[in-house]
Amino acid sequence: MASRKTGEFERIATFFAPLAAGFPGALGLTDDAAILRPAEGAELVVTTDTIVAGVHYIGDEPADLVAQKLLRVNLSDLAAKGARPVAYTLNIALPTAVEDDWLERFCAGLAADQQRFGIVLAGGDSVATPGPVTLTITAFGEIAVGRMLRRSGARPGDRIYVSGTIGDGALGLKILRGRLAGIAAVHRDFLVERYRRPQPRVACGARLVGIAHAAMDISDGLVADLAHIADVSGVAAVVEAASVPLSTAAAAALEIDPQLRDAVLGGGDDYELLFTAPPDAAPSIAALAAGLGLPLTAIGRIEAGRGVCAVDAAGAEIALARAGYTHG
Amino acid sequence: MASRKTGEFERIATFFAPLAAGFPGALGLTDDAAILRPAEGAELVVTTDTIVAGVHYIGDEPADLVAQKLLRVNLSDLAAKGARPVAYTLNIALPTAVEDDWLERFCAGLAADQQRFGIVLAGGDSVATPGPVTLTITAFGEIAVGRMLRRSGARPGDRIYVSGTIGDGALGLKILRGRLAGIAAVHRDFLVERYRRPQPRVACGARLVGIAHAAMDISDGLVADLAHIADVSGVAAVVEAASVPLSTAAAAALEIDPQLRDAVLGGGDDYELLFTAPPDAAPSIAALAAGLGLPLTAIGRIEAGRGVCAVDAAGAEIALARAGYTHG
Repeated sequence: MASRKTGEFERIATFFAPLAAGFPGALGLTDDAAILRPAEGAELVVTTDTIVAGVHYIGDEPADLVAQKLLRVNLSDLAAKGARPVAYTLNIALPTAVEDDWLERFCAGLAADQQRFGIVLAGGDSVATPGPVTLTITAFGEIAVGRMLRRSGARPGDRIYVSGTIGDGALGLKILRGRLAGIAAVHRDFLVERYRRPQPRVACGARLVGIAHAAMDISDGLVADLAHIADVSGVAAVVEAASVPLSTAAAAALEIDPQLRDAVLGGGDDYELLFTAPPDAAPSIAALAAGLGLPLTAIGRIEAGRGVCAVDAAGAEIALARAGYTHG
Repeated sequence: MASRKTGEFERIATFFAPLAAGFPGALGLTDDAAILRPAEGAELVVTTDTIVAGVHYIGDEPADLVAQKLLRVNLSDLAAKGARPVAYTLNIALPTAVEDDWLERFCAGLAADQQRFGIVLAGGDSVATPGPVTLTITAFGEIAVGRMLRRSGARPGDRIYVSGTIGDGALGLKILRGRLAGIAAVHRDFLVERYRRPQPRVACGARLVGIAHAAMDISDGLVADLAHIADVSGVAAVVEAASVPLSTAAAAALEIDPQLRDAVLGGGDDYELLFTAPPDAAPSIAALAAGLGLPLTAIGRIEAGRGVCAVDAAGAEIALARAGYTHG
């Protein structure tokens, strides 16, 4: 235990303390705890994710990308709650074979995203493992008391919206697994980047407070995540499949293989926002989209009932690959 | 990912949601985030620890003990900061071979300690791993703004105190590793229990606010942890070795093998409080000890200088096994 801890202290001082600079509550990572105090009238939103090498990312993925994906997945959760990012803690379990240059690149990825998204390291833990790299981030955001966006607020009559484009993450993963060999290089690169480095919609999420009835981010896939909103809200969701916004690259992929529509509706890793809002919010949402330069697209409707289904442009139900979600 | 997530949702509903009952900010674990709001005039203290099967505990340790040790290690950190426990998040990475009965017992351990220490589950994440069980708890406590006990407040002239008895955890670990065969069964059981199920000094820590100048819990060992306080406080610490309080069982172990004194001063896993306070606080500390029924023993003094040393009853310096800490 002594040698593990000695290594830990050196690593903290060398690699992690610089990431905590400028956040008084981190106490320079020299104490056993950090201090978090929400601003007057605000409360803290807490979210946490764990990733494992070989399970959640390919084991030889560059360390800076691994760091940024983990941080961004958490930032995406904060965005979906309408919260402003404040700080995060990091728990790393590393095999002894992991060299300092891996850690250096990992922390460089964090440093770049801390700047980009206005979040800072507050504390953490570093241990050795005989298993794969295992990483946990717990992220803290602030929001005005009682205003956090939830999954549970969808109401019949709401329109369903998504930010950005859908399916890119799942298609990017297929490419990394050797599929879609016929796609143009520019599209391949775009889709892989979308999988590897999601764009948490932090500014958008904060602006949806007071507009959206329910919100979450798309991590498990559009249909599965919409099912979560429908379930906890006690409503049914109808996806108008032709309205689901596709990137140019995703559209090109579907031209090659129309079967990939299942990956678009069912695949995960988009980290776009999924939210519902009443019809009279449409002008506000259009203005928000214009202001952010981010498409916010209506893709369906909330109805009384239970479950999720998808319909085509003629209104006919489309069979979804995941039958568990079709009992609309 | 679909099957992993389905499993995750079932596990959350079955095993974890009951642990979050009664904490509104957990939202029944049905959302992507939890809400934490410190009471008026308070701020949040955050601490986090990760443990790995086969590294931080013996792989076949009963699951309820694993859960309780992890939770208590975090509670001990909150105690050392003077904070009142509020809530925690849990991240579990489990091999697929782990059965539901392991998880059931794990959660039973958490449930019992939630009752015992007044803390509740607020959220978390559950993933699969090809490696060993890897567990992270991030614990949140409350303290009046600006009052958190720190490592950095020790001043020359302070007395050094510990709660409870020292060395039991390290001796318990030695027994689990097959050492100390000659010790009586009653002592063996006591020491092993002390290693397996530390007693976080939550009530004591909260009462030390306003009394202690510096505090931390003893996890790496008395000398190593005192070195942390001395380092960040910019002072020297002198341990009067004969004053270090031993349990009856530890005293019996040292009778069998006097060399074990190194394990007492240098070994970890006690999770007792280590703190410094000015001489005029002695009556308050004595009254606190009496009120809690917990020994609080003066074991040394803070001086100007750097580093940690130990002296015998005659004031002669004792060589410490970990030479790095002897340059007092």
